[in-house]
Amino acid sequence: MSEEFNLIDRYFLPLCQPLFEGEVGIGDDGAVVTPLAGHQLVVVTDTLVKGVHFPNETCAYDIAWKALAVNLSDLAAMGAIPAFYTLALTLPENEPAWLSDFAQGLKDLGQRYQVALIGGDTTRGPLTITVTAHGWVPKEKAVLRSGAQSDDLICVSGTLGNAGLGLKLALKRLSESEQAWLTEEMATSCLQALNHPQPQLDLGLALRGVASAAIDVSDGLLADLGHILEQSSKGALSALGAEIYLDALPLSNALRRWVSNKRDWSLPLAAGDDYQLCFTLSEEVWEGLQQQAAKLGVEVHAIGRVTGENGIKIKQNMRSEGSVDEAWCHALNAGYQHF
Amino acid sequence: MSEEFNLIDRYFLPLCQPLFEGEVGIGDDGAVVTPLAGHQLVVVTDTLVKGVHFPNETCAYDIAWKALAVNLSDLAAMGAIPAFYTLALTLPENEPAWLSDFAQGLKDLGQRYQVALIGGDTTRGPLTITVTAHGWVPKEKAVLRSGAQSDDLICVSGTLGNAGLGLKLALKRLSESEQAWLTEEMATSCLQALNHPQPQLDLGLALRGVASAAIDVSDGLLADLGHILEQSSKGALSALGAEIYLDALPLSNALRRWVSNKRDWSLPLAAGDDYQLCFTLSEEVWEGLQQQAAKLGVEVHAIGRVTGENGIKIKQNMRSEGSVDEAWCHALNAGYQHF
Repeated sequence: MSEEFNLIDRYFLPLCQPLFEGEVGIGDDGAVVTPLAGHQLVVVTDTLVKGVHFPNETCAYDIAWKALAVNLSDLAAMGAIPAFYTLALTLPENEPAWLSDFAQGLKDLGQRYQVALIGGDTTRGPLTITVTAHGWVPKEKAVLRSGAQSDDLICVSGTLGNAGLGLKLALKRLSESEQAWLTEEMATSCLQALNHPQPQLDLGLALRGVASAAIDVSDGLLADLGHILEQSSKGALSALGAEIYLDALPLSNALRRWVSNKRDWSLPLAAGDDYQLCFTLSEEVWEGLQQQAAKLGVEVHAIGRVTGENGIKIKQNMRSEGSVDEAWCHALNAGYQHF
Repeated sequence: MSEEFNLIDRYFLPLCQPLFEGEVGIGDDGAVVTPLAGHQLVVVTDTLVKGVHFPNETCAYDIAWKALAVNLSDLAAMGAIPAFYTLALTLPENEPAWLSDFAQGLKDLGQRYQVALIGGDTTRGPLTITVTAHGWVPKEKAVLRSGAQSDDLICVSGTLGNAGLGLKLALKRLSESEQAWLTEEMATSCLQALNHPQPQLDLGLALRGVASAAIDVSDGLLADLGHILEQSSKGALSALGAEIYLDALPLSNALRRWVSNKRDWSLPLAAGDDYQLCFTLSEEVWEGLQQQAAKLGVEVHAIGRVTGENGIKIKQNMRSEGSVDEAWCHALNAGYQHF
């Protein structure tokens, strides 16, 4: 166990700054933090397992970045101000170079959003990383999954499917001809989307009091939108559904090429790991939110509409009659196989 | 992922009760909790890895109990009122019977102390359980490791070494003659100490404003007392040390037999996993605390004294000159090998 203390002191103690007066960080049985007056505490937790949530070859810096980013993304989806986190790190061995890179990944992302490491546990075993992140939200102002209403617009930030294509690249699952569709720049940006997701924390704050529901796109657009519809249906008179318009889906250049060549929309519709926000809002507030997002430098797009009809219907565009041919979109029936 | 949601709904959703009005539990991107007025938040986290922190044969109920108990024990050592926790559960497969037993273990311990499960993550991989538990403590009243002073009494709750002997039993590492020292009742109670540690939460509350420092005995008495001395030395004029009196160590009947037959004190001094509290206090408040502990039905014993001399000295009793023969206590040099 003294080894544990050395590890913590050397690599993780420097991440435990700054705390406020009267607070306690790493080095006691627990951390002590003063709540933000008038706010509620938001708690999120996500685990990454080697070979399940990231390819075996992923470098320590990227693993750490992602472990923290996916949690901050959950805070963003709640409209929370990120504050601090704990780290439970299970490691097969102590490699100083690996640990130093891992700590640097946490440090770089943590500094960007002013979130401090306040405590943790290091144990011996197969590489597994659990971060539990905490934020503050003004009392009863958290953005939930459960407020969507019929006729609300469905919107997303950024572009969709990049991390899914990045995963195919990382696992070397592209054929030569598929690879040829992508410039080096496109490939790099897809790998970046996979390994360095950017939690949409600023947008999350802008959604408070504006969005009727929000979720981060971790499992894939259809699955995550499904969670909003499920939670929101509980309070509705009848089950809610949605229409999604393919022409409106925001795609990067790489994804545009992929979709038009493959004639397959499963990456933007169902690949996970993009960590964009998917949210619903009433049409009246849409223009204001677009202006707000523009000020933040965040792209937002309306991609569909909540309906009073159960299920998610995929249309080519808003004016199309009926759903698109299912063959056009493998994701609808098969679901996307996560790594 | 829908499999994950089924798991959560079936086994873990029932543990997410009751929350207060305006709070959010399982089923959104994060949980939302209202801070207790006038209090600070205490956050602790501990991971159990199969084959590292519990023997492979340990049943699901016991694993769950221990995963939560070791965290509640950390809250106890801070003097915190336990409130809620998150669970990150990495599982090799979904066995309904195993999950049902696991959930029952969490439920039974959680109900005893009114702590609710508020969120979590279930992932696929080698069995690893991380609990992050949260409690409340009146502003700046947390009991820290850093307040011990020279001449303070060193005290512990309960008895020491039972879990260590329980581990030897669980791993079938006792010789026939060693086994013969223990009645069946003694063996059962040592296994109980290993698998069902009782977090000393009531005592923890009683230590607020009374103890100068506290820690829970998870790594073994000498190691954990060492943490108190190390943290408390930072604020002292010179490094603090301690004297421990073997005659004063509280032992169960099983441990009394073990120590007298083996002539070896390493279990009570250095075996971990007892989850008793080790604390220091000034002699003036000792009688009052004993009365308070008696009301709570918790045994407390003074076992030594903080000194101004670096290092931990083991004496036979308070009046002995010099330390005991080191051969009498293997733990002093060798340290105890954790499972």
